[in-house]
Amino acid sequence: MEVSSVTTKTAANTNESLASLAGMYRDELVNHILPFWLNHSKDEQNGGYFTCLDRYGNVYDTDKFMWLQGRGVWCFSYMYNNVEQKQEWLEMALHGANFMEKYGRDQEGNWYFSLTAEGKPLVQPYNIFSDCFATMAFASLDKASPNDRYKQLAVDTFENILRRRHNWKGIYNKAVPGTRSLKNFSLPMILCNLSLEMEHVIGKERVDSFIPEVIHEVMDVFYQPQLGLILENVNEDGSFADCFEGRVLNPGHAIEAMWFIMDLGKRMNDEALIRKACNIMLDTLEYGWDKEYEGIFYFMDVQGHPTQQLEWDQKLWWVHVEALVALAKGYALTGDERCSQWFLKVHEYTWNHFKDKEYDEWFGYLNRRGEVLLDLKGGKWKGCFHIPRSLYQVWKTLDGLKS
Amino acid sequence: MEVSSVTTKTAANTNESLASLAGMYRDELVNHILPFWLNHSKDEQNGGYFTCLDRYGNVYDTDKFMWLQGRGVWCFSYMYNNVEQKQEWLEMALHGANFMEKYGRDQEGNWYFSLTAEGKPLVQPYNIFSDCFATMAFASLDKASPNDRYKQLAVDTFENILRRRHNWKGIYNKAVPGTRSLKNFSLPMILCNLSLEMEHVIGKERVDSFIPEVIHEVMDVFYQPQLGLILENVNEDGSFADCFEGRVLNPGHAIEAMWFIMDLGKRMNDEALIRKACNIMLDTLEYGWDKEYEGIFYFMDVQGHPTQQLEWDQKLWWVHVEALVALAKGYALTGDERCSQWFLKVHEYTWNHFKDKEYDEWFGYLNRRGEVLLDLKGGKWKGCFHIPRSLYQVWKTLDGLKS
Repeated sequence: MEVSSVTTKTAANTNESLASLAGMYRDELVNHILPFWLNHSKDEQNGGYFTCLDRYGNVYDTDKFMWLQGRGVWCFSYMYNNVEQKQEWLEMALHGANFMEKYGRDQEGNWYFSLTAEGKPLVQPYNIFSDCFATMAFASLDKASPNDRYKQLAVDTFENILRRRHNWKGIYNKAVPGTRSLKNFSLPMILCNLSLEMEHVIGKERVDSFIPEVIHEVMDVFYQPQLGLILENVNEDGSFADCFEGRVLNPGHAIEAMWFIMDLGKRMNDEALIRKACNIMLDTLEYGWDKEYEGIFYFMDVQGHPTQQLEWDQKLWWVHVEALVALAKGYALTGDERCSQWFLKVHEYTWNHFKDKEYDEWFGYLNRRGEVLLDLKGGKWKGCFHIPRSLYQVWKTLDGLKS
Repeated sequence: MEVSSVTTKTAANTNESLASLAGMYRDELVNHILPFWLNHSKDEQNGGYFTCLDRYGNVYDTDKFMWLQGRGVWCFSYMYNNVEQKQEWLEMALHGANFMEKYGRDQEGNWYFSLTAEGKPLVQPYNIFSDCFATMAFASLDKASPNDRYKQLAVDTFENILRRRHNWKGIYNKAVPGTRSLKNFSLPMILCNLSLEMEHVIGKERVDSFIPEVIHEVMDVFYQPQLGLILENVNEDGSFADCFEGRVLNPGHAIEAMWFIMDLGKRMNDEALIRKACNIMLDTLEYGWDKEYEGIFYFMDVQGHPTQQLEWDQKLWWVHVEALVALAKGYALTGDERCSQWFLKVHEYTWNHFKDKEYDEWFGYLNRRGEVLLDLKGGKWKGCFHIPRSLYQVWKTLDGLKS
């Protein structure tokens, strides 16, 4: 047998074995994750979603965190748009959107960070990511249930984000101006994804005009060639900042960004960009993988110093499911066998440790050893978002491998 | 043998066995902890202290965090005032104080949160505890090396704290006014201790005028009789707030506060207050003790819900050494055998897990199992403070048990 045919056969086998997993991702999404939120998260009295849900789905805190309200609306709209036009999914999205529209913004149109169950503002709009997820929510809902009000809300919020993007902390910024100006990776990374979500509202041309800057920021500014890693914070000129914020690596964040970039690469037919993103993703995974207990670390110091994050060695749900998306896409787009090998390794770790074998939805927070640290299914930061989005992305990507 | 004589004999034995430990606390303080900071922490070039020191004492980050600058000045002054008038200790205190005086405050006299190594302001004075530790620093230094400038700095900062005390977050407060006004325990707790530190500057009468309010805040407002615990945050009217902030217990914080209260009780000859503080301390310790792996948890939810703090199950140095102080004082002041039993248990855990057997100074952050999580000896929050202060307090308290 010739070498090339062995390779072809191996690739065919890999395709087949990965594609055979597609069904379990679909099943988990449709039969276990979305029903959990439908059954437990709806606040029938006040509107909006409860997100602080214990292992069994009981509400243990009633505050409404705007990140998760927006993400929930986005998720149910997205599934309605992309999986099946189920009426209960659309109703669930509208249920959250009505609450958001009614109570979510201050006088200037900025989105609060959190509200009480009844919708009274609790925490000021200090955090621009509430606005990012609100934009995603209303853009996606407008696809499911077209409405000029939703369009306008998405556009207004998007423009507001762009206006605030270079000084988004505003009055809440604690850094003394002029001493050490750091740029943070989170906003350019999210804008990558956000502009695509907004395409049907703002048009292809406007989206295309954003993409080069976003790609430049992520791949040239935050990516540090001498390290081979993407940092969370760099100096204004893109150089390495030797301080806690400058040294920190968040492997999950960088890995997640790489599938956004691969999506952009695919859109632009830019194979070199896809390959670069795929390599950075694999290098980050290699670097961030816990060789002793498996799983991906939450935070690391790229010089090996102690992190300021005490939770650095914990294993978080979103890190692992985003890695699965990146690996599946990396494999589908490049055929790189390192992606399929890593996919199977991360797949096994993730399903064995995060999925609750007795009750629906997955655990979010494990200790370094992979034991459950907090048995919540939802909280202040974990809602109906990363798991369903990733299950959908992996399902569709693996499905696409079928010949 | 009569019961009373057995009791007396037991008490005498307990006194003796605890008193026999005094020497190891003194030795650790004088021969291992203070020398570590003297040898590694001094920034000879710019002044002030480096506090980010790795296991061996090497500097891994050069930022100057004002909490720890102030605490270092306080510590070396205090040891000079109370242990021995060693010239190098006074010089070390002056070394930090000069840097603080030169660079530490903004135009309004508020203390920055952090500075660069050279003294340029990095993070704004958003945190009033920088001011608290600066007050302690200059009050204590003024005892060691009397100087009107130090007195004035201590008084000005103290008055500034009192002025800001009811709205100390000022412009950095993210809570929307009027929705959920919580009171936080940290400031009244520190004022307990701070007023005593200021006595030689502001006079006994002024100190006495503060004490009743501080005791009332801690023992009546933050102490919740139906729980038997001291909470970190309560509603303005002192009632329980059913939200993440309202449900959180920080056992170490409450235990530390109880020895401050016992000190006040001793000052006022108030035995009932001492006994109440001692009982709350023991109840908190019982509640916060990890029955599976030993050690005291960092955070807990008093309703048993998941905490928002991911580091909730970690074992921190300051929690354990402050518990030793509280237990030693509790025993010395009340003779309650539960204190001596707990003291021996916490003593064993602390020395076995936190003390680095190979190099000077102690580890600060252990995981739930008591394994080293970060092997730093100093960082952004750990400096020359809790360990030396506690070693001193335990040494002196146990020494006082000698008949």
